[in-house]
Amino acid sequence: MGTALGRAWLAAGHPLTVWNRTPGRTAALTAEGAVAAGSAAEAVAANRLVVACLLDDASVGTALDGADLAGHDLVNLTTGTPAEARERGVWAEKRGARFLDGGIMAVPPMIGAPGAFVLYSGHQELFEEQRGALAVPAGTEYVGADPGLAALYDVALLSGMYGMLAGITHAFALLRGTEVAPGDFAALLVPWLNAMAGTAQETAGRLTSGDYTTGVVSNLAMQVAGSGTLLRTAAEQGVSAELLTPFLHLMRDRVAAGHAEEDTTGLVDVLRTR
Amino acid sequence: MGTALGRAWLAAGHPLTVWNRTPGRTAALTAEGAVAAGSAAEAVAANRLVVACLLDDASVGTALDGADLAGHDLVNLTTGTPAEARERGVWAEKRGARFLDGGIMAVPPMIGAPGAFVLYSGHQELFEEQRGALAVPAGTEYVGADPGLAALYDVALLSGMYGMLAGITHAFALLRGTEVAPGDFAALLVPWLNAMAGTAQETAGRLTSGDYTTGVVSNLAMQVAGSGTLLRTAAEQGVSAELLTPFLHLMRDRVAAGHAEEDTTGLVDVLRTR
Repeated sequence: MGTALGRAWLAAGHPLTVWNRTPGRTAALTAEGAVAAGSAAEAVAANRLVVACLLDDASVGTALDGADLAGHDLVNLTTGTPAEARERGVWAEKRGARFLDGGIMAVPPMIGAPGAFVLYSGHQELFEEQRGALAVPAGTEYVGADPGLAALYDVALLSGMYGMLAGITHAFALLRGTEVAPGDFAALLVPWLNAMAGTAQETAGRLTSGDYTTGVVSNLAMQVAGSGTLLRTAAEQGVSAELLTPFLHLMRDRVAAGHAEEDTTGLVDVLRTR
Repeated sequence: MGTALGRAWLAAGHPLTVWNRTPGRTAALTAEGAVAAGSAAEAVAANRLVVACLLDDASVGTALDGADLAGHDLVNLTTGTPAEARERGVWAEKRGARFLDGGIMAVPPMIGAPGAFVLYSGHQELFEEQRGALAVPAGTEYVGADPGLAALYDVALLSGMYGMLAGITHAFALLRGTEVAPGDFAALLVPWLNAMAGTAQETAGRLTSGDYTTGVVSNLAMQVAGSGTLLRTAAEQGVSAELLTPFLHLMRDRVAAGHAEEDTTGLVDVLRTR
């Protein structure tokens, strides 16, 4: 990811000093015009804007331990939890740096191409002053002053994606060993998921209003009644239902708790009490 | 659902005879011009095309037990498993009817509006001859001669949707109790899920070729390493990870089995061996 980011900045004409824990990893960038620093401290000293993209939050602390951050803008694109980002922000400010945390919503080949974006949170003036440079590798989305917010959005989006991948995996497993060509099924699955993703807006509206029942078209009682067909089909097709059952059980438990007339919105609250 | 379908046919000028197990449920349709039959057998006798939309497959057998199906076209829009659809097809043919099974990919308010569609499988000539009438309430998608295919596609699409809903539920739960407005998050989540749904086409291509490693950008080893952040964030936010862990465990087990360089495609096969 660091190489992809660096390439985008070099291509846009930004001066770039690079450092990597593994010597030699910077060769691709120095070949394109980057300056290789002998240490992280030396790299930090080269420019006001310092971008960290490392394995994990602990690596950021280790790598920058001996660097003088005073007067620098530290933008941390290392994946971590909201709490880690907040603590790293306090750590950076104690050392005299302004701090911005970022969550990269892209894989390296997407960097520099449309569609990639980075969620930012933390020091807003830093974000606005450095936005020109930050916008080079990917779109920018500032989500708030709390440095933990970008990681929170990042993890929430990724978690949503893994749920969808679990559904896609189960769906393909049902068709495995049948005459159905995976590509023919995908041609129906993708638009179907795109249409159904829009229900997230309805869920957001219900979470905001607190009304989980008015205008519900397919209530939990009906959905639980229908879920038997999903489980029996999995059994018929020889597919483990392990990816499907946790959500079906959550619906069943919510009905048992007296919420048969709701849609799935109330399950959001249930996850916070289990 | 029966009422929504009937309304669409009446609005398009089709003569319609209706029957419901619960007398009085047909009042909305008779008020709009439908003829109410005194029995299911009487309703069957009224037209060549017979559409069944009942609670479950067993209800179809019970309701049509005394009806003379010979020479009729039975279109079964009752939700069931592929095996139930196949058995119902044999049952109908023994009674002299042509049989088509259908899976309705819509909720009642969507019937008659763009976007709704019904998957059909079974007797292809029946489908083609009756397509004009069948296309009135919703788009038609014929998926093959095996009567079980429509139910298989239907359940696979619904299962994929429930995975996505599980992901959406977990994502909103992470943000619950924070300053993030659910609608602001949904505005990022919906396009993100739409972009990521496209990976189903890539998975289909890999399932077809059998090559799960060439060109993989984010392999299972990297994804498993990153999943710790998702679990720690859930713990920080006080959210049960029960909807997330089954897929993460599936990835972890696949890496342990020596497939670290694959993407998630191989998990489709794993679900069929557990």
